[in-house]
Amino acid sequence: MEHPVRGGLREEERVLVSEQSWRPCPKARKRLRGCLEWVKRQLFRVGEDWYFLFVLGVLMATISFMMDLLIFRLYQAHRWLYREVGDILVLKYLSWTMYPMVFAAFSTGFTQSITPHSGGEPAAPQPPTPQNEGTPTIWTPLHPPPGSGIPELKTILTGVVLEDYLAIQNFGAKVVGLTCTLASGSTVFLGKVGAFIHLSAMAAAYLGKMRTSVTRDYENKFKQNEMLVAAQAVGVATVFGAPISGVLFSIEVMSSHFAVRDYWRGFFAATCGAFMFRVLAVFNSEQESIAAIFKSKFEIDFPFDLPETFFFAILGAICGLVGCAYLFCQRWLLAAVRENRLTAKLLATDKPIYTVLVVLLLASITFPPGLGQLMASQLTMKEYLISLFDNRTWGALTPNASAVTDPLGGDPQGLWQEWAHPSATIFGTLAFFVVMKFWMLILATTLPLPAGYFMPIFIYGAAIGRLVGETVALLFPQGLRSEGDLRPIIPGGYALAGAAAFSGSVTHSLSTALLVCEATGHLGHVLPVILAVLVANAITQKHQPSFYDGTIIVKKLPYLPRIRSRHMASYRVVVEEFMECRVVALAKGSGFEEVLVALDASTDAEYPVVES
Amino acid sequence: MEHPVRGGLREEERVLVSEQSWRPCPKARKRLRGCLEWVKRQLFRVGEDWYFLFVLGVLMATISFMMDLLIFRLYQAHRWLYREVGDILVLKYLSWTMYPMVFAAFSTGFTQSITPHSGGEPAAPQPPTPQNEGTPTIWTPLHPPPGSGIPELKTILTGVVLEDYLAIQNFGAKVVGLTCTLASGSTVFLGKVGAFIHLSAMAAAYLGKMRTSVTRDYENKFKQNEMLVAAQAVGVATVFGAPISGVLFSIEVMSSHFAVRDYWRGFFAATCGAFMFRVLAVFNSEQESIAAIFKSKFEIDFPFDLPETFFFAILGAICGLVGCAYLFCQRWLLAAVRENRLTAKLLATDKPIYTVLVVLLLASITFPPGLGQLMASQLTMKEYLISLFDNRTWGALTPNASAVTDPLGGDPQGLWQEWAHPSATIFGTLAFFVVMKFWMLILATTLPLPAGYFMPIFIYGAAIGRLVGETVALLFPQGLRSEGDLRPIIPGGYALAGAAAFSGSVTHSLSTALLVCEATGHLGHVLPVILAVLVANAITQKHQPSFYDGTIIVKKLPYLPRIRSRHMASYRVVVEEFMECRVVALAKGSGFEEVLVALDASTDAEYPVVES
Repeated sequence: MEHPVRGGLREEERVLVSEQSWRPCPKARKRLRGCLEWVKRQLFRVGEDWYFLFVLGVLMATISFMMDLLIFRLYQAHRWLYREVGDILVLKYLSWTMYPMVFAAFSTGFTQSITPHSGGEPAAPQPPTPQNEGTPTIWTPLHPPPGSGIPELKTILTGVVLEDYLAIQNFGAKVVGLTCTLASGSTVFLGKVGAFIHLSAMAAAYLGKMRTSVTRDYENKFKQNEMLVAAQAVGVATVFGAPISGVLFSIEVMSSHFAVRDYWRGFFAATCGAFMFRVLAVFNSEQESIAAIFKSKFEIDFPFDLPETFFFAILGAICGLVGCAYLFCQRWLLAAVRENRLTAKLLATDKPIYTVLVVLLLASITFPPGLGQLMASQLTMKEYLISLFDNRTWGALTPNASAVTDPLGGDPQGLWQEWAHPSATIFGTLAFFVVMKFWMLILATTLPLPAGYFMPIFIYGAAIGRLVGETVALLFPQGLRSEGDLRPIIPGGYALAGAAAFSGSVTHSLSTALLVCEATGHLGHVLPVILAVLVANAITQKHQPSFYDGTIIVKKLPYLPRIRSRHMASYRVVVEEFMECRVVALAKGSGFEEVLVALDASTDAEYPVVES
Repeated sequence: MEHPVRGGLREEERVLVSEQSWRPCPKARKRLRGCLEWVKRQLFRVGEDWYFLFVLGVLMATISFMMDLLIFRLYQAHRWLYREVGDILVLKYLSWTMYPMVFAAFSTGFTQSITPHSGGEPAAPQPPTPQNEGTPTIWTPLHPPPGSGIPELKTILTGVVLEDYLAIQNFGAKVVGLTCTLASGSTVFLGKVGAFIHLSAMAAAYLGKMRTSVTRDYENKFKQNEMLVAAQAVGVATVFGAPISGVLFSIEVMSSHFAVRDYWRGFFAATCGAFMFRVLAVFNSEQESIAAIFKSKFEIDFPFDLPETFFFAILGAICGLVGCAYLFCQRWLLAAVRENRLTAKLLATDKPIYTVLVVLLLASITFPPGLGQLMASQLTMKEYLISLFDNRTWGALTPNASAVTDPLGGDPQGLWQEWAHPSATIFGTLAFFVVMKFWMLILATTLPLPAGYFMPIFIYGAAIGRLVGETVALLFPQGLRSEGDLRPIIPGGYALAGAAAFSGSVTHSLSTALLVCEATGHLGHVLPVILAVLVANAITQKHQPSFYDGTIIVKKLPYLPRIRSRHMASYRVVVEEFMECRVVALAKGSGFEEVLVALDASTDAEYPVVES
């Protein structure tokens, strides 16, 4: 019985070997086994989680890319259909509205029938289970949450166990559902990021379970959370191809404190993901190099003049105010839809019908021969961004009537013409877009679909920024410089700042400033962009909880207490309201009678003794 | 005695007013006072610390800029002196060596005489005071620490109180000392970042004290730490003009855990600082716009080809290995200098003499007509970086003999010619630079001066990267693409990656990847740069503590336990060495005699009972 620890292992091996002794050459087998063990030990010495992080990054990037490809084809099919039906208005209208309706309805129905988690149903609010701080609470939601999944992940990271929320069974359903949602295109105006973060978290949880079975380790709550944090970073990084801001964004959105250790893991996984994502794009000959995704062609020498920072600050303030309004209305509508008898009933029993009705409304408004022509509604989500980040000043361009009937196939330089309406000018279309999309965005968030809400917000912000930028360029056609070279204003820079500021204010994060830079591969505007983001955040954080916190509040997820306490200041509860106003005190030198009076005067058991 | 809380305050005011009743118009005064109070309340409602963060950022940026200006002038004076003495070799040698010697000696002597903290004396190691985890320990160092100050700040942030380390009295001395150190130029090859972080922390501590006196708040340990974290971010941001990576770098270097709340503050202060820094540069007509500091002119369309990532990974591995060697030698030399009888005595009593001797050695080696011509030693630190980040391939250029006698005044495009030696070629000079600067860098860190060690490491890494990049460009003059357009390799991209990878591996941080991007305003290479940084870090973190941790170990600051435990794995201590190997066990069914035998067999008080 020497060396019990190691001896035990040897004993086990011996038993195994003796069991297999009827097989040929047991010694060679044993040596092979030892060799394999050694290789495994060497490989896992680095920390086996790195392999899993690598796999996670590459896997999610591949899925993200494949999804993009498929969505692109589906979108092309829609374009083709719309073009081929000819000039009969009714047919055009039907082809425009039916296509997204079918996809959205399928997405809703499919994900609901397979699993209630990946789409979810907004239902009558449930009282939250009492929650003990610190100890993990298992909370089985009766009415699973809709949409993106970030609020739920945030809740999970605080230690609450949401049953089955990360089950791998939902993965496939969510992928299919998300693809269908996105295939319905810019009509519904939904994104990919949030849902992809959820997908990534599911994959991470599954890989985590695999790891524990491979290394025969115990399930480790901390390791799981580390993987989840990394997964969020991967989710952002593989959609935008932006590793650094992916990590930062997931940190800001998810947690109030975090370990530098997690940051590392997230960084590694996100880099693998972003790398793979861009490499796939190069292999597919979509892009010439693995540089930025929404490549911009700004002049890098003189991105902006110093006095322009004033306008960037104003843009930030506008974005902050609109962000407040957006957050307030979004929370209100989400609660209203749940409380209204008609919609609540529809959502409880016939989700696809609700979806179809909402999508029909949205699609009718964006119908290109109708109001759609004022909203550039023929563009895809990606084209919206590319056109808004255009490096030219639209106000100074004259549209070429013969160009662009099919923006998808054509030159990205011509995309802006979708915004140029003969009678409304680009200011009219941009303003109309900003006004209309405000409620359309909010309405879209009530859809019981798997979808992300970040991208729409991002585009909306870019539109605000473009509008402000074009206005500034109109006011100062010669630029703001009094002496020296002429440097015209670049409205595209304002679009960058607007996108960062609005999405940052709605999600209460600063890293969107870096995100726009990484996504466009352009760092020239980083300082004014940060300025705008800071101003916008200062306004929104003061007055509204973030988009995700708001959703947590409306859904009554068990994260509530901490969020409320953060905004307690606005309730204006002061000590005065609770305190005892009539304090009976005894002077230091007071005699027996004064004590008697004091005793009679109140029912308190203790009396303060004061100097005078 | 109604409303005792508020009533008390009113009473106080009444007393104040009655005391001042002899003055004219007491009512108006009271109203004015109330009005001022109201303004103050309104202003401080946002959180008064934001004002202080703003002031901190702007203040440090101004100091940083002024310092840069002064150093530039002093450096120009050195150039002028060196040129004016004519062609007599002895005079040339004297003017080359004396100038930095005088400045370095003055820096050492001045900071030592005013305050021992801002420069510090490496002395015989002191046993660390026993430290209780969690509770703040006051640790008065008998032998104050030299150099940058980051290790000490790191120690302070863990809760240890280093007496007087952040006293504002040292501020002026450290500014003067640092300016003198930097004025001695690239001969000594020292930087500004670390020392500037210390300066920034001093200013933050002082502002924090001011705040508590203005708001009549209690001194709050947490608030102080928040300010310190923000101060570090400001320190990096105002030197590199890089706000985002400033925040990230300070987080990575300083802490193992951190609050998103601090991140915000750091972000705000760093942005203010970086903005101010660049605005000053524009006002001074140094730069045309407030874009990046070391502006690069890389082609952004095709920064690199996919197969090149392999070479970037190799570059990362090289940087990681060199980083390990550097860290090991640096720690060894730092300890050796303290233990050697001669140097220890010199450092204890006559620091300036030690400084003069070391600077003489360094200056003699970099003397341009001697070995200096192989090391481009006429360049300043900034010119080193600008030349190494050059977007052209040096191997394909032919030097123009008539150009550049004074690189400072001349065209930045001509800077590379300093590296072109007629007989050694650029490969020879770069390799020689890398070999020689290895030990020169390490030697410079033993100088008892206020200085930063980040910039030299950064430049060294860039030189390694340039060397690798030029080699790759030499091997594949046509680029790595087999089909399509010709895309030559850009060695400047390798220089970027090398700088980030080497500085990242030495400091154990990843954010240097973002730092090079922000400093050059160029995001095209971000993915290969991150790759190189990750590879380099993976190697170094496995085998060596970081530069700052190493310094903490050598200086025996009371941070030790945690660092050691992190590297405990490499000691290979296994349980086996401690455990009792001869375990006497009792079987479940054993009788009286077996128990007797067991009792005799060992002296243990307890015996395990086993199944069989």
